[in-house]
Amino acid sequence: MDKLILGEKEFNSRLFTGTGKFSDKSLIKPMLEMSKSEMITLALRRVDFDMPQENILNYIPKNVTLLPNTSGAKTAEEAVKIARIARTVGCGNFIKIEIINDMKYLFPDNEETIKATKILAKEGFIVLPYMMPDLIAAKRLEDAGAAAIMPLGSPIGSNKGLQTKYMIEILIENCKLPIIIDAGIGRPSHAAKAMEMGAAAVLVNSAIACSENPIKMGKAFSLAVQAGREAYLAKLAEEKKYAEASSPLTGFLFEE
Amino acid sequence: MDKLILGEKEFNSRLFTGTGKFSDKSLIKPMLEMSKSEMITLALRRVDFDMPQENILNYIPKNVTLLPNTSGAKTAEEAVKIARIARTVGCGNFIKIEIINDMKYLFPDNEETIKATKILAKEGFIVLPYMMPDLIAAKRLEDAGAAAIMPLGSPIGSNKGLQTKYMIEILIENCKLPIIIDAGIGRPSHAAKAMEMGAAAVLVNSAIACSENPIKMGKAFSLAVQAGREAYLAKLAEEKKYAEASSPLTGFLFEE
Amino acid sequence: MDKLILGEKEFNSRLFTGTGKFSDKSLIKPMLEMSKSEMITLALRRVDFDMPQENILNYIPKNVTLLPNTSGAKTAEEAVKIARIARTVGCGNFIKIEIINDMKYLFPDNEETIKATKILAKEGFIVLPYMMPDLIAAKRLEDAGAAAIMPLGSPIGSNKGLQTKYMIEILIENCKLPIIIDAGIGRPSHAAKAMEMGAAAVLVNSAIACSENPIKMGKAFSLAVQAGREAYLAKLAEEKKYAEASSPLTGFLFEE
Amino acid sequence: MDKLILGEKEFNSRLFTGTGKFSDKSLIKPMLEMSKSEMITLALRRVDFDMPQENILNYIPKNVTLLPNTSGAKTAEEAVKIARIARTVGCGNFIKIEIINDMKYLFPDNEETIKATKILAKEGFIVLPYMMPDLIAAKRLEDAGAAAIMPLGSPIGSNKGLQTKYMIEILIENCKLPIIIDAGIGRPSHAAKAMEMGAAAVLVNSAIACSENPIKMGKAFSLAVQAGREAYLAKLAEEKKYAEASSPLTGFLFEE
Repeated sequence: MDKLILGEKEFNSRLFTGTGKFSDKSLIKPMLEMSKSEMITLALRRVDFDMPQENILNYIPKNVTLLPNTSGAKTAEEAVKIARIARTVGCGNFIKIEIINDMKYLFPDNEETIKATKILAKEGFIVLPYMMPDLIAAKRLEDAGAAAIMPLGSPIGSNKGLQTKYMIEILIENCKLPIIIDAGIGRPSHAAKAMEMGAAAVLVNSAIACSENPIKMGKAFSLAVQAGREAYLAKLAEEKKYAEASSPLTGFLFEE
Repeated sequence: MDKLILGEKEFNSRLFTGTGKFSDKSLIKPMLEMSKSEMITLALRRVDFDMPQENILNYIPKNVTLLPNTSGAKTAEEAVKIARIARTVGCGNFIKIEIINDMKYLFPDNEETIKATKILAKEGFIVLPYMMPDLIAAKRLEDAGAAAIMPLGSPIGSNKGLQTKYMIEILIENCKLPIIIDAGIGRPSHAAKAMEMGAAAVLVNSAIACSENPIKMGKAFSLAVQAGREAYLAKLAEEKKYAEASSPLTGFLFEE
Repeated sequence: MDKLILGEKEFNSRLFTGTGKFSDKSLIKPMLEMSKSEMITLALRRVDFDMPQENILNYIPKNVTLLPNTSGAKTAEEAVKIARIARTVGCGNFIKIEIINDMKYLFPDNEETIKATKILAKEGFIVLPYMMPDLIAAKRLEDAGAAAIMPLGSPIGSNKGLQTKYMIEILIENCKLPIIIDAGIGRPSHAAKAMEMGAAAVLVNSAIACSENPIKMGKAFSLAVQAGREAYLAKLAEEKKYAEASSPLTGFLFEE
Repeated sequence: MDKLILGEKEFNSRLFTGTGKFSDKSLIKPMLEMSKSEMITLALRRVDFDMPQENILNYIPKNVTLLPNTSGAKTAEEAVKIARIARTVGCGNFIKIEIINDMKYLFPDNEETIKATKILAKEGFIVLPYMMPDLIAAKRLEDAGAAAIMPLGSPIGSNKGLQTKYMIEILIENCKLPIIIDAGIGRPSHAAKAMEMGAAAVLVNSAIACSENPIKMGKAFSLAVQAGREAYLAKLAEEKKYAEASSPLTGFLFEE
């Protein structure tokens, strides 16, 4: 069977989702069911320990793996702190590093991200760093002990799809780690394309959560991810310059 | 329920398939099952009446609608002849007009196609004309009585996807008839994109039939078509120039 | 020398311009000087015979060839009438056929355009038909006696560039006549790209005339057309998948 | 007049060229004359002090500014060494930092590049760093004292143009320093497009040097850079969804 393995854990679904942006948290559960997503990211700040009834964790079924992220961190040091707290409060070993110093595009800071990855991987975390697609930085993240690389397609929440397609293809061709496309995926066709290119998974948050119908959209992305993956495994046809007839054209009707 | 209606017939699936290019005809049936396609095109020349055991019709389940095509026709007159024979021999009322005078790209001849559409629509056929995307010609096909318009994405068998995207979007926005993308779709992401744009259906032939694994690929296209359709119905998000945070970013961790 | 020949006339410049859309007609002359354009299109309706001082012809230097167009025509018949009048009133033998039945995109009507071309070519006109890029229609225009083919890049005045690039490349590869890109070119880079692809010329109207500075923009397009043409003649380099060092990289500094 | 100013030096031309890849060094001088380029990059290793007659400097006219590069450097330390030697041997104050740890795509190492920029800017060099387009890294290069930022369009020598267009537009919009596109530009239309986007200059090396006719191609790029710059200054027209008539269309010929 075609499973994604991260940190010894197996995933049947290659669609990761997010909790951010849901106006109504009660939609998270049915969205997870329809999308079959088995991994969901959440900002640690959303985990409200004082008001347990508001705690985002109440809305996530037990079979779904938590991927706490370090959003709000501007340095490796801050990201490391958040990661440790996340583990302490029971969010598990997975951590998505998000270190952001740019408030307009929310672009990740590759240099600080590499530092944080090194520290957290040594501490036994399964580290998934969000990064600006850059082969040199990706190689350093591999050396630093990341479990996968999460390059962005375009800015978070922009729905602009794979603007960085060229660089992502290079990461997929040249990295040993799974490549998980993390931001900017706004349409199922973007997700299908990422999977056809050989991405190991995609993370889709606002395109689902901000949709008029997050449950329907969760299903749409789930189908698209499967479609792209199946096509990748079955091998895509080459493009051809000229036409190739599907039907016989060499004579009219029953003539030879 | 979201059904496609053509000539009073209802279709649950918006993926049309083809019989051409299957090296092993026994794959057609399981491909149809996996892809859930309910409409399949076939060249009349493939219907071999003298050797019934070779007859392509034997390989197509009864619940799947036949879409005989006029491949081999170079003029309206020839296309009309083929269509009439197809109906006579029991292939039904549906006809896909293919009039081709260019052997390199297999581009359709819009002028002759309009003529044939006029004649066949009057004779009660449900006419689906394969055409070069051109708004003026599409309007004439509407006036001529077509049941849907089938513009090409790129040459038959080229797998080049929606090279004519700009013109197809204009057809979708300005035509009353369903727009069915007919040629060049080589990847599930192409199909998803077409459906997201508002296409009523897509016809995929060689990308499935020539695949190493036509059954798996049939399923991949089926999922992609559903994904694109669901997303179209649930309404796609707008692209944004700048990022929109999924997670709270205004302070570090539990600070305000 | 690299000259464009149309109807026995030689042109040094491969940039055609237009008179439409100039808010101030006195800019036409300096624009022609700066752009070095030697062919300019004009709507016959602009030629005001009753008010000679308003006549657009007064603004066009004698060395620039007139390309009257049939704008306003909806049928071949109307286009033919306009062409004949244009010749009668002294606008010369060149005629640009524009037959338009769509007021939203101003797309040309290929079928009527082919008819008008046939008639006018027989009458000795040098016929340049504006057309929707379509190989079959282009071949018919060749047979009908056109002197060049003028496919659109995108709608008139839209500045959307070569949205029909794929089809135009096919026309260039497969037609014997010169291909002149006629509409939608909004930026010098569009014009350069068209020329690099092997277009014989480009016609740029509103991108120059509606610019804040038509004279400066006329020069910009002139440079771009020359740049693209020179590169086409000097042969463009192939794209390469991997990098090729410009500088020696095999060792540090003076080491071997 | 529209001049580019770098380190108090004024340049009339916004086309930078390179010495690498010329099979025949005697072509450099006429190429510089035809392209009007006033800045040329050279690898320090090419400066052969023992065989003065082979020295690349002999082929470069005095009025052209030298831009020695640090090619061959894999670390900031090595780049700094090369830069110092370049100044010592009389190549001037300009230095293009190239620190490359990837031999397949020759991608620059942003982290090391930032370090080298900091050191060399303090030593009074006019530093032009070659970099992977990344807004965070660009801001650090600004802080480090760079005189301009040189993001790549695509890999050196690949002729793939502006694959990183999306990220380069963001650099242009958000950086105070001039943005000079450095690698991958293979066609004049690529150069024109970069200039239309607001790039301050482009560096073109192999597309000129490896051309069948480097002198003609040097001229083509020169024209394209001017075309793009003129259009940028004259302001480009907006794209429009629908057509805008250039000629009057409201009635046939002389009717009202």
